[in-house]
Amino acid sequence: MKKFINDPEDVLRDALAGVAAAHPTLAVDAANRVITRAGTARPGKVALISGGGSGHEPLHGGFVGPGMLDAACPGEVFTSPVPDQMLAAAKAVDTGAGVMFIVKNYTGDVMNFELAAELAADEGIGVSTVLVDDDVAVQDSTWTAGRRGTGATLLVEKIAGALAEQGGDLASVTEIGERVNSRSRSFAIALTSCTTPAAGKPGFDLPEDEIEVGVGIHGEPGRAREKMRPASELAAAMVGAIWADMPLPEAAETIVMVNGLGGTPLIELYVLFGEVAARLAERGVVIARSLVGNYVTSLDMAGASLTICHADPRLLELWDAPVNAPGLRWGI
Amino acid sequence: MKKFINDPEDVLRDALAGVAAAHPTLAVDAANRVITRAGTARPGKVALISGGGSGHEPLHGGFVGPGMLDAACPGEVFTSPVPDQMLAAAKAVDTGAGVMFIVKNYTGDVMNFELAAELAADEGIGVSTVLVDDDVAVQDSTWTAGRRGTGATLLVEKIAGALAEQGGDLASVTEIGERVNSRSRSFAIALTSCTTPAAGKPGFDLPEDEIEVGVGIHGEPGRAREKMRPASELAAAMVGAIWADMPLPEAAETIVMVNGLGGTPLIELYVLFGEVAARLAERGVVIARSLVGNYVTSLDMAGASLTICHADPRLLELWDAPVNAPGLRWGI
Repeated sequence: MKKFINDPEDVLRDALAGVAAAHPTLAVDAANRVITRAGTARPGKVALISGGGSGHEPLHGGFVGPGMLDAACPGEVFTSPVPDQMLAAAKAVDTGAGVMFIVKNYTGDVMNFELAAELAADEGIGVSTVLVDDDVAVQDSTWTAGRRGTGATLLVEKIAGALAEQGGDLASVTEIGERVNSRSRSFAIALTSCTTPAAGKPGFDLPEDEIEVGVGIHGEPGRAREKMRPASELAAAMVGAIWADMPLPEAAETIVMVNGLGGTPLIELYVLFGEVAARLAERGVVIARSLVGNYVTSLDMAGASLTICHADPRLLELWDAPVNAPGLRWGI
Repeated sequence: MKKFINDPEDVLRDALAGVAAAHPTLAVDAANRVITRAGTARPGKVALISGGGSGHEPLHGGFVGPGMLDAACPGEVFTSPVPDQMLAAAKAVDTGAGVMFIVKNYTGDVMNFELAAELAADEGIGVSTVLVDDDVAVQDSTWTAGRRGTGATLLVEKIAGALAEQGGDLASVTEIGERVNSRSRSFAIALTSCTTPAAGKPGFDLPEDEIEVGVGIHGEPGRAREKMRPASELAAAMVGAIWADMPLPEAAETIVMVNGLGGTPLIELYVLFGEVAARLAERGVVIARSLVGNYVTSLDMAGASLTICHADPRLLELWDAPVNAPGLRWGI
């Protein structure tokens, strides 16, 4: 294992020091392991908090900023953060309007965010939770009951974040977050495994000519181990898997994200996006907005995920709203 | 080799199709292989054109947009674009105020941009050239006489692009581009090789416990093959190499970029940035602005480069100016 780290035990601490040094718009509470926006919170604004295991950067810390999250709670690599982190975050950013937890559907995350919600309620903080479970690959998985939460998390954070910034109350921000999740689906393909600093070796083996179809963002098994194929066929498989779960009406407007899992060059993501766009055009789908890049990653895994959100005018309007987070910026 | 591609011969064509599908703010001339801003150019604006081999995305096509480039000419992977591409770009974006070529110092690129400048002059288009040669690792290299051009290219494109947007004339835009280059230095370390689609196998061999110190963005040899070390020591080596070439005065203000070469996870880049920031603080240097991410890449190479620009108030003001390119966005 060759990584830009010091002691594998200190990766999260050291990365947070880097985040603090790099981004004056963020405040890093190193003791509690909480990233918030720098400066004081605007009274009356609903606060959005997300978190999860590290190794998926820029998710979630890179999405803290005006128009998106108020706080992120990073756990150790591929490990849920603890309830005390989320409670510290809630206390730091609640202004009386309540906080919304955005939780990817992994058993540890769900349990810890539930505990944190109880602790926050004891402190008089109103809490709602949006559970993200967009990955259509498998029903249950290594660390998940039900579907895994993956790429749609970014869309929930962006769109609900925009509504919170505009003054939406806790109920309406929660409703729109749930709406984004219910209208979004994802599917991923891994070309290689990934290596956590603690393990020091790849989490699974993948032969030189095989891919994991439907992989999870921690390398969880997907639907099948298959032979490598051209991008056009992989794009068709990804679109087909999503379509089987969420067929779209003619001329449906969508937000489409082709997301790199960390080790795949951007030029390949563009090749894949072109093929996805062609497959969607054949099905009469309109790509109204798109993202191509590394947003919800799995350390150094080579691979990509496709997320399709069935948009509507309100979702597009909120998508277009200004955002100024290190990992996603426009309009500000 | 497992990559999201179709035929290795078609990677550039297919990636350009993806760029066109993903970014309505860009126009892709597939026949000439030129990326420009969508819409018509503003009369009287100096046009900035860059280009080079593909495989370094988002450089250069991702930096086309208001506040940065007017056009990019992508060659095949790790291969210079041809003069006809640059001529087509110049004709597409010149509005009479002239065009500035931003050229990374590789023999093929330099030669082809020189030929293009002559062809453009024959068409009555005023052309200036800024040659970027910021990499302090080696004096001459595999495809270079003199120093290689690497990370500072982004800074030249951003800062000169801002001045051009504000109405700077060709001489002043060229002067500021040259100033950025003269005040910027870079140094890179590779943890792995990279694989071009055409070759189908890694461009060089690197043992499991060794790194290439001073590597070029095509995998060109650096200064030494060394044993892997902690991030703190690698950061010290990178800062030291740059400092030996460009020592900075006490309290110097800098723009610092820690750039991933394509296969390194963002969490590691943050660890490295934190260590770089600590080393610079020890030397009394102020990080006035920073970038952490994958901006000037080498396909799937694991590794990172450090770029330090000795800024001044004017450079910082132009750095802060709005930019709206797919690979770099703020303030618009």
